[in-house]
Amino acid sequence: MKVGIVMGSKSDYPVVERTEKILAGFGVDYETRVISAHRTPSVAEEFASGAEADGIEVVIAVAGKAAHLAGVVAAYTPLPVIGLPVKSSTAGGLDSLLSVVQMPKGVPVATVAIDGAENAALLAVQILSLKYAELRGAMKTYKENMEREVIRADAEFRRNAGR
Amino acid sequence: MKVGIVMGSKSDYPVVERTEKILAGFGVDYETRVISAHRTPSVAEEFASGAEADGIEVVIAVAGKAAHLAGVVAAYTPLPVIGLPVKSSTAGGLDSLLSVVQMPKGVPVATVAIDGAENAALLAVQILSLKYAELRGAMKTYKENMEREVIRADAEFRRNAGR
Amino acid sequence: MKVGIVMGSKSDYPVVERTEKILAGFGVDYETRVISAHRTPSVAEEFASGAEADGIEVVIAVAGKAAHLAGVVAAYTPLPVIGLPVKSSTAGGLDSLLSVVQMPKGVPVATVAIDGAENAALLAVQILSLKYAELRGAMKTYKENMEREVIRADAEFRRNAGR
Amino acid sequence: MKVGIVMGSKSDYPVVERTEKILAGFGVDYETRVISAHRTPSVAEEFASGAEADGIEVVIAVAGKAAHLAGVVAAYTPLPVIGLPVKSSTAGGLDSLLSVVQMPKGVPVATVAIDGAENAALLAVQILSLKYAELRGAMKTYKENMEREVIRADAEFRRNAGR
Amino acid sequence: MKVGIVMGSKSDYPVVERTEKILAGFGVDYETRVISAHRTPSVAEEFASGAEADGIEVVIAVAGKAAHLAGVVAAYTPLPVIGLPVKSSTAGGLDSLLSVVQMPKGVPVATVAIDGAENAALLAVQILSLKYAELRGAMKTYKENMEREVIRADAEFRRNAGR
Amino acid sequence: MKVGIVMGSKSDYPVVERTEKILAGFGVDYETRVISAHRTPSVAEEFASGAEADGIEVVIAVAGKAAHLAGVVAAYTPLPVIGLPVKSSTAGGLDSLLSVVQMPKGVPVATVAIDGAENAALLAVQILSLKYAELRGAMKTYKENMEREVIRADAEFRRNAGR
Amino acid sequence: MKVGIVMGSKSDYPVVERTEKILAGFGVDYETRVISAHRTPSVAEEFASGAEADGIEVVIAVAGKAAHLAGVVAAYTPLPVIGLPVKSSTAGGLDSLLSVVQMPKGVPVATVAIDGAENAALLAVQILSLKYAELRGAMKTYKENMEREVIRADAEFRRNAGR
Amino acid sequence: MKVGIVMGSKSDYPVVERTEKILAGFGVDYETRVISAHRTPSVAEEFASGAEADGIEVVIAVAGKAAHLAGVVAAYTPLPVIGLPVKSSTAGGLDSLLSVVQMPKGVPVATVAIDGAENAALLAVQILSLKYAELRGAMKTYKENMEREVIRADAEFRRNAGR
Repeated sequence: MKVGIVMGSKSDYPVVERTEKILAGFGVDYETRVISAHRTPSVAEEFASGAEADGIEVVIAVAGKAAHLAGVVAAYTPLPVIGLPVKSSTAGGLDSLLSVVQMPKGVPVATVAIDGAENAALLAVQILSLKYAELRGAMKTYKENMEREVIRADAEFRRNAGR
Repeated sequence: MKVGIVMGSKSDYPVVERTEKILAGFGVDYETRVISAHRTPSVAEEFASGAEADGIEVVIAVAGKAAHLAGVVAAYTPLPVIGLPVKSSTAGGLDSLLSVVQMPKGVPVATVAIDGAENAALLAVQILSLKYAELRGAMKTYKENMEREVIRADAEFRRNAGR
Repeated sequence: MKVGIVMGSKSDYPVVERTEKILAGFGVDYETRVISAHRTPSVAEEFASGAEADGIEVVIAVAGKAAHLAGVVAAYTPLPVIGLPVKSSTAGGLDSLLSVVQMPKGVPVATVAIDGAENAALLAVQILSLKYAELRGAMKTYKENMEREVIRADAEFRRNAGR
Repeated sequence: MKVGIVMGSKSDYPVVERTEKILAGFGVDYETRVISAHRTPSVAEEFASGAEADGIEVVIAVAGKAAHLAGVVAAYTPLPVIGLPVKSSTAGGLDSLLSVVQMPKGVPVATVAIDGAENAALLAVQILSLKYAELRGAMKTYKENMEREVIRADAEFRRNAGR
Repeated sequence: MKVGIVMGSKSDYPVVERTEKILAGFGVDYETRVISAHRTPSVAEEFASGAEADGIEVVIAVAGKAAHLAGVVAAYTPLPVIGLPVKSSTAGGLDSLLSVVQMPKGVPVATVAIDGAENAALLAVQILSLKYAELRGAMKTYKENMEREVIRADAEFRRNAGR
Repeated sequence: MKVGIVMGSKSDYPVVERTEKILAGFGVDYETRVISAHRTPSVAEEFASGAEADGIEVVIAVAGKAAHLAGVVAAYTPLPVIGLPVKSSTAGGLDSLLSVVQMPKGVPVATVAIDGAENAALLAVQILSLKYAELRGAMKTYKENMEREVIRADAEFRRNAGR
Repeated sequence: MKVGIVMGSKSDYPVVERTEKILAGFGVDYETRVISAHRTPSVAEEFASGAEADGIEVVIAVAGKAAHLAGVVAAYTPLPVIGLPVKSSTAGGLDSLLSVVQMPKGVPVATVAIDGAENAALLAVQILSLKYAELRGAMKTYKENMEREVIRADAEFRRNAGR
Repeated sequence: MKVGIVMGSKSDYPVVERTEKILAGFGVDYETRVISAHRTPSVAEEFASGAEADGIEVVIAVAGKAAHLAGVVAAYTPLPVIGLPVKSSTAGGLDSLLSVVQMPKGVPVATVAIDGAENAALLAVQILSLKYAELRGAMKTYKENMEREVIRADAEFRRNAGR
C-alpha cells in the first residue's frame, strides 16, 4: 500500500512533513516528490500517468496560490487524488482552496482544509482501508486515541481548575 | 459495493439526483437518506455509527449553509466521507464550502466543489476502485469517453466554424 | 444559575478565560469543558442531552475553523446556545463565523463576534437575567460602569490634550 | 411574556412575518414596530430605553446593509437583543451580517443567520423558557416534531424511490 | 472653522492623531472626543444633536468592527459626517468598512479608506473650503507640494539608479 | 450652487437619475456628463481641471468594476469628490467599492454605499450647506420628513396589524 | 499573425464569440479550440507545445471555476498567454479569477477581467502590434473611435436632457 | 527593446526591484519611474502619452490599494500595459487586484498575481519576444532552467530522504 505525495515546491515541505508523519504512524508507505504543474508539466504528466503502474494507490497533491497541481494530476490518473491547499502569503489561502476544490464536472479532487496536512494523510488512510482491512482497525484505534486524548484533556482541565 | 448518501433536507434532492445517476451508471449500489445533523442528530449518529456494519463503504454527505452533516458523520465513522457543499441562497455557497472543508485535525472530509454533484459520485467510484478492480477499468473508460466527447466537440466546433 | 462552557480544544482556553472572568464578575457559576464535536462526538451528545438536567441554563460553545460544536450542542438541547467563533489561522475567522451563524431553520445558535469572549458571557448574563432579577440589576450597573469609563477616558483625553 | 420586534423598514416585513408566525405558534405575545436607527434615532432610543418597563423581555432587531438597529437597541437596554441580518441587494448579506455580529466588547447582539427569520423567533423562545417553564416543554415538542418531520421525509423518500 | 472628531475607543488614537496632524497643518480647529455608539449612546446623541450649535461644521467619526459610530452621529445631525473605518484584528477591516459605508437611503456617511486617517482630514478640509476660500488655496498648495514630492522622488530615484 | 455629476457610461444613468431627483428636490443645480476615465481620459482631465472655474462646487463620480473615475477626477481638482460605486455584474459590487474607497493618502474620495444614488446627492447637499444656509434648513426638513414617514409607517403598520 | 483561442468547454462559446468579433474587426486571424485542461490534458499539452510551431503568436485561454487551462497552456509554451476567467454559477467568478491570476513565480498568465471577452482580444492585438505595425495604427483608431463614441454619448445625453 | 516601469510610490521599490532583476537577466532595457496616478496625474498622462514615442514597447505599472495607475496609463497609450497589484496592509491585496484587473471593456490591463514581481517581468519578455526572436530563445532557456531546478530539487529531496 503506497501513497504518492507531490508538492509544488520544496518550500511546501514543512506542511508535507506533517502528512508524512501520520502516514508513517499508520505504516503506510509513501513516496514524496517535488513536481510543479507549471515548471515541470511533463514530469507531472509522467508521474500522474504512471502512478497506477508504479503501485501508487492514492495521490496527495500539495500546492498554493493558483494551485493547479492536484487538478493536473487528477486529469492524468484514475486514482483518487487528495488536494491539500497551502496558504499563500498574498491572498490568505482562499486562492489555493478555490483553485483546488472548484474542479469542473468529471475530474474530482478530494479537498481538505487549508494547511490541513494531517487530514490529507488520514483521508488517504481511510481510502486505503477499503482494501487493507488492517488500516480500518488502525483508523478506529486512532479515533479512539484521539477521543481519549480529548477526554483526558477535559478531565485534567477540570481537575486543574478545581471546579 | 455500496455508497451511503445523506442529504440534510429533502430539498437537496435535485443535486443528489445527479450524484445518484453517476453511481448508477457505474453500477454502484447506493442508499439515499434524508438526515439532518441538527434536526435529527440521533438518526445521524445512528446512521454514521452503523454505516460500516450496514455494508456502506463510502459516505457522501450533502448540505448547505452551516453544513455540519459531513463533519458529524465523519465524527462517528472510520469510513471515508465525501462532503458536497450546496449553494445557499444567502451567502453564495462560501458558507457551505468553508463549513464542510475546514475540518479540524483528526477528522477529514473529502470536499468537492460547491454543487459538484457528479464529482462526489466520481470520487466515490475512484475510492471504491481500490477494492473493486472492475471500477478502475470503468473509471478509465469514463475518462476516455469524457476525453472523446471534448475532442468531438472540438472537431465539430471547428467544422461548424468552417475554420 | 449555571452556564455550561464547552470549547473544541484546550488551545481555545485563552479566549474562554476571558469569558469565565466576566461570568465570575457577575457571580454566575460556570462549568468549563473540553469537548470536541468531531473527536468526542458521544461526549458532546451526552453533555448536550444532559445539560438541562445538570442544571445548566445557558450553553456557550467555543470553536474555530469548521466550527460545528455550537450546532451539535444546539441539536441535542432545548437550552439557548451561544456560539463564540474563534479566529483560525488559515481563513481569518470567516470560516468559524459562517459555520456557527448560518444555522438552518429550526436550530438557532446565538452568535457573537469572532473572538468576542466577553460578549458571549454578557449575553449569557442578559439571558439569565430573565429569571434572576439580581442579574438584571448587575447588568445595568455593568453598563453604567462601562459608560462611566468611556466618559472618564473622554474627559481625561481632553484634559491631557489641553483642548 | 412579550417579545419586541423592530424592523428598520416596512419592506423587511416579509421576513419579519415568518418570525411572528413562529412566536404565535408558541403562544408568545409580540409587538412589531417599524423603527429606523438612522431615520428615527430618537424613537429607537425611546423604544430601547423603555422596552424593559414596557414589559418586553427579549428584543428582535431586523435590518439590512449597514445594519445598526440591533446595536443601537442593545446600547440602550439591558435586555437580550437578537439581531436578524437581512440580505441586501448590493453586498450579498455579508454587510448586514458583519454589521450585526461584530459588536464591540460590552454590548453583545445574539446574531442568527442571514434572513434566519424563524431562528430569531426560536432563539427568543429558548431565552424566554428560562423563566416560563411551559415554553421549555413547547420547545421540546417543537424539536420532536421537527425530528419526526425529517424522519417522515426520510421514510417517504425511501418508499418513493423504491429503494 | 471647526471639525469634530469622535473615536469609539481611546485605543483608536494612534489613527486619529494622524488625522489631527493634517487638520493642524491646515490651521483647522478640531475637537477630539472619545464617544462610543454602544457604550455611551446618550453622549453620542448629545454630541451629534448639539454639534451644529457648538460650531462644528464637519464631523469625522472613527470606529472599528461593527462600526456604528458614524451612522449614529449622522442620524442626529444635518452636518456632513466623514466615516473612517479602522481595521479590526478579527475580520481584516472589511467589517468596519461595510458597517460604515453601506448606509441606508437617507443618511449618508462620507467614507474613506480603511485606516485612511489623513484622507479623512483632507476630505474635511475640502468640504470646509466651500465656505472658507483660504482653505481652497491651501488645498491647492497641498496638492502641488504632494506632486512636487513625488516628482522629486522620481528624479532622485532616477539619479540614484544612475539611469 | 452647482453639482457636477460624471458617469463612466451612459448605462449608469438609471442610478444617476435617482441622484438627480434628490438634487432637484433641494433646488440644487447639476450638470450631468458621460465621461470615461479610461475611454476619454483627456475629457476627464479637462472636466476635473476646469470644474472649479466652471462653478462646480461638488463632484459626484459614478462608476463600476475597476471604478477609477472618482479617483481620476479627485486627482485633478481641489473640490470634494463623492464616489458612487455601481454594482458590476461579475464581482458583486465589491470591486467597485474597493476601487473607489481605498484611495491612497493625499487624494480622498467621499464614498457612499454601492448603488447608493440618493445618498450621493444628500451628501452633496450636506456639503453645500456649509456655504448655503438655506440648504441646511432644507436638509433638516428632509430629515424630519423622513422621520415622519417612518413614524407614519410604524403607526399604520401597528393599526393594520391590529396590535 | 494568428491568435490561438482555447476554451475549456463548448458552453464558454458565448463569451468567446465576443473575443472573436474583436479579433476579426482588427483583421487578426484566429483559431478557436475546445480543449479541457482536465478532460483532455494530452490535447492541451499537444496544443500548447505545438502552438509556436503552428504559427500561433498569442494564446487566449478561457475557463471557469478552478480554471487551470491558462496555467496549463502557459506551462508548455514560451508564448504570451492571456487568461480570461469566466464567471461560474457557484462562486461568483472569484474562483475563476484567483485560479487564473495567482500563478506562481516563473509562469505568468496575463489576466483580464472576469468575462472580459473583448479585453482579452484587445490585449492580444496590443501584443501583436509590437511586431505588426499596422495593428498599432488600428489600435489607435480603435481608441479614438471609442473616445468619440463616449463623447457623442455625452453630447447626445446633454442635448436630450435639455441641460 | 525597452520596458517602462512605473510605480505609484517609492515604497513599492522592493517589489519593483525583483521585476528589474528579471529584465536585466534577459538583457532587456528598462526605465523605472515613480509616478502617482493620483498625486501626479499630469506626469502620468505625459508619461503614458509619450511612452510609445520614447521607445517604450511594454509598460509595467505597479500600485496598491485602489490601484488606478495601470488603468490610467492604459487609457493614454496603445502599448500593452502589465498591471502588478501590490498587497496593501488594510485589505489583503484583494483591493489592489480587483482595481487592476476588473478594467472596463475597451481598455485591457494584463494583470499578474498580487506581488507577482517576477511574473510581470517574464510576461514583458514573452510579449517582447514576438518582435525580438532572441528573447524567445532566452525564454525557452529560462523555462528549461526552471524545469531543471525543480527536477534537481526533486532528485536531491529524494536522495536526502533516502527513499
